[in-house]
Amino acid sequence: MAVTVTLLGRSLVTSRLCGCVSLSKRLYCSSAKRVRVRDALTSLETGSTFRIQGWVRSVRSQKHNLFLHVSDGSSLQPLQVVASSDLNTRDLTFGCAVDITGSLEKSPSNKQNVELQASRIEVVGECNPVDFPFKIKGHHSLEYIRQFPHLRCRTNAFSSLLRIRSQATAAIHSYFRDNNFLQIHTPVITSNDCEGAGELFQVEPAGNEWNSDKENPHFFSVPAYLTVSGQLHLEVMAGAFPAVYTFGPTFRAENSQTRRHLAEFYMVEAEIAFTESLKDLMKIMEGLFKTTTENLLSHCAEDMELFHKYVSPGYMEQVDLMMKRNFNVISYTEAIDILKHSSEQFAFKPEWGCDLQTEHEKYIVQHCGNVPVFVTDYPYELKPFYARDNQDQPQHTAAAVDLLVPGVGELCGGSLREERLELLRTRLAQAGLEDTYAWYLQLREFGSVPHGGFGMGFERYLQCVLGIDNIKDTIPFARFSHSCVL
Amino acid sequence: MAVTVTLLGRSLVTSRLCGCVSLSKRLYCSSAKRVRVRDALTSLETGSTFRIQGWVRSVRSQKHNLFLHVSDGSSLQPLQVVASSDLNTRDLTFGCAVDITGSLEKSPSNKQNVELQASRIEVVGECNPVDFPFKIKGHHSLEYIRQFPHLRCRTNAFSSLLRIRSQATAAIHSYFRDNNFLQIHTPVITSNDCEGAGELFQVEPAGNEWNSDKENPHFFSVPAYLTVSGQLHLEVMAGAFPAVYTFGPTFRAENSQTRRHLAEFYMVEAEIAFTESLKDLMKIMEGLFKTTTENLLSHCAEDMELFHKYVSPGYMEQVDLMMKRNFNVISYTEAIDILKHSSEQFAFKPEWGCDLQTEHEKYIVQHCGNVPVFVTDYPYELKPFYARDNQDQPQHTAAAVDLLVPGVGELCGGSLREERLELLRTRLAQAGLEDTYAWYLQLREFGSVPHGGFGMGFERYLQCVLGIDNIKDTIPFARFSHSCVL
Repeated sequence: MAVTVTLLGRSLVTSRLCGCVSLSKRLYCSSAKRVRVRDALTSLETGSTFRIQGWVRSVRSQKHNLFLHVSDGSSLQPLQVVASSDLNTRDLTFGCAVDITGSLEKSPSNKQNVELQASRIEVVGECNPVDFPFKIKGHHSLEYIRQFPHLRCRTNAFSSLLRIRSQATAAIHSYFRDNNFLQIHTPVITSNDCEGAGELFQVEPAGNEWNSDKENPHFFSVPAYLTVSGQLHLEVMAGAFPAVYTFGPTFRAENSQTRRHLAEFYMVEAEIAFTESLKDLMKIMEGLFKTTTENLLSHCAEDMELFHKYVSPGYMEQVDLMMKRNFNVISYTEAIDILKHSSEQFAFKPEWGCDLQTEHEKYIVQHCGNVPVFVTDYPYELKPFYARDNQDQPQHTAAAVDLLVPGVGELCGGSLREERLELLRTRLAQAGLEDTYAWYLQLREFGSVPHGGFGMGFERYLQCVLGIDNIKDTIPFARFSHSCVL
Repeated sequence: MAVTVTLLGRSLVTSRLCGCVSLSKRLYCSSAKRVRVRDALTSLETGSTFRIQGWVRSVRSQKHNLFLHVSDGSSLQPLQVVASSDLNTRDLTFGCAVDITGSLEKSPSNKQNVELQASRIEVVGECNPVDFPFKIKGHHSLEYIRQFPHLRCRTNAFSSLLRIRSQATAAIHSYFRDNNFLQIHTPVITSNDCEGAGELFQVEPAGNEWNSDKENPHFFSVPAYLTVSGQLHLEVMAGAFPAVYTFGPTFRAENSQTRRHLAEFYMVEAEIAFTESLKDLMKIMEGLFKTTTENLLSHCAEDMELFHKYVSPGYMEQVDLMMKRNFNVISYTEAIDILKHSSEQFAFKPEWGCDLQTEHEKYIVQHCGNVPVFVTDYPYELKPFYARDNQDQPQHTAAAVDLLVPGVGELCGGSLREERLELLRTRLAQAGLEDTYAWYLQLREFGSVPHGGFGMGFERYLQCVLGIDNIKDTIPFARFSHSCVL
């Protein structure tokens, strides 16, 4: 016999909600279709029996009825589950894992399109609300949840971040594939101490007393480091392929705990053969930024909105601005002029020949209307040996370019590479590196081509499009000095 | 005046091939469309003027005409370039880089559809054929080219490998995305010494005397290692998402130089929440293998053929067999029975309770008709603490599964994970690891769900589908004991 009760101004047939354990057990084992919350939310199959599995985000118990919000990580929005209060149990708490069967019905509320009218609710994993560090009504800051790296993915904000990060990763791969770049897995362990030592991690087998064996002190026979850039390895490939890229972890043993630095972070790096102009590189950088961001705005709208509403209110306008406008291009020399003519009091005095500091970079971006700006043609002496000599005078510059963006400062750095054997040999010899980079010189000896490339910090990109202040909130497991949890 | 010469039985208007330097210079700067070799080879726009840039793979000079094969890495097949011998120069040698403009024409030969009739040939990077380690008519073995990690991408075999590797990477990402897995960047640096120490790399900043500062001996305050698996970090995520995966570098400080081991290699790892059966995992593993391989066979047919013809002749049949047949499933106990009843003389005697050796794995695969075989339910004592207890008797097993494949042996390993708090706590306590894995126990304390996952060695996968004997020939820059070149 069907008993009708009134619930929030609507009728429910209670026999569908309770007392049908044997039916629900059967459904559980066989006919009920398992669906993700995201698919249930947009399903047109109202009236169908579905099974969902996820974690409880809220519990509200009324006299006759029980309301749950259940999330399974497939979307920010949870699924509302309605059940007879008979199905309530003591272990049905915030954070517990549930397995629920019910009928998907049109929701009478305008907060959601559909809701699941549950006939079976099984708690598969309990969650003691006293011990669980997140509370049902708590508004936990990014800083607070950062203390629980093994649990923070269970919060709305961090699960949104992880969905965005996954989508951004896929979008970046798509961008390069659509433009016919080959993906190269550049090595993590390398014997290059690259841009002249400093802040490298070194690796040896654990438990070995380093250098204790004087004859054979290293596992790899030579000192080995964690990569700070895949560029040189990509340049190898630019001697055989038209365009290559890598997207992987990169390391700096920087003893800093700022909002801007991680010891392990992700870099997107690209190298293009037969390129003779910084314009080619800038086109690719701007394309990468805009295509990826466009992809996120259309595929992760809800998750992006969380950040633009609650984490960095009003930031959507900044993103809109970056998407609509062409990126600016100025030379380093122009940038120094702008800084010198500004009334701003800088901690570091801007001077031709000196590196731009973060304060300078941020000022330049503001000066350019908070639209990203490419700064080109840096002083030759500031750039590493591989940067291509512009052979200009009197202000001797190299064909290098940085992309500066709002909030972050430097997002990308790139250059044409010195492909001319004799110029490169001379510069390496001056630095005493001719032997170390004999292999690199050979790339120019055998079928050298004009080429260039750039790198983009992936976490800084996420900071820039989401308005995230602290870089530690953009990566699943943050590593920095004095911290390597898990 | 157009002078007609006979060339390989066909007519060419020589005025199109030479003496038009001023025209070609104009084309070079403006109207000639830059195309990749791959696109030129399939272009229908015969009669059009194109510009191609690449490296010379062969030079053949006749009295009136010059034939080049030019490759730019976009395809295995080079583009044939035909020119008047007037355009020949001393520096037009095997390996040099060229920039060529010409008219794309239907080729009279059946070796190629089209050829480029060049009006301009510029050598942009010379290549001294005496010093260049690869010779124009040399058939260089994989072992030989391995000595030149900065140049081997310029050989046919290794450029094919790199195209296949890039495509396989993309195919694996597609497979997981199509099945709604979230990609997680699990960390490279970790404080877990995972499956009980042994063969880990440790990291500290370079130049530091380790442990010299007794107060603060470590950069991360704790010993930090290079990851051997992202599994535990994925399990964190399986507490908030229905399905996650990672695909990145993994490390073993194994002091071996075999055909089967690298110190740095790539692993694909997946973790699925709300999974209660090994069948679910096996379905995903088989799907991953077959979908990826199908993708390679359709997108990299030419490159695959190179390996199946020249590197591992006849291997295509093996690949066909793996694609056509359902993978076998046997239990570990059955596998031991098969081994015990075999007449094969094994170096290690097969015995219930002992690990399967590579020789055993290869025998099992052969026994199953050279079709991949899943071996399930290994002895409980052989498996790490996280493997789910089957609670069977008298042969006490865990819900673990390995996938064995021809040529390689173990390709994948997976298990259901022990989600039951008390069972896990007891096992960790027995191993004295309760404190170390307090965070891992918390995953079970708060909303635990049945889950499981697996890992696949990416280089072993490439060995298996390409028939490559030595794993060092499957990765751009191989790292193993005593070797970390570049």
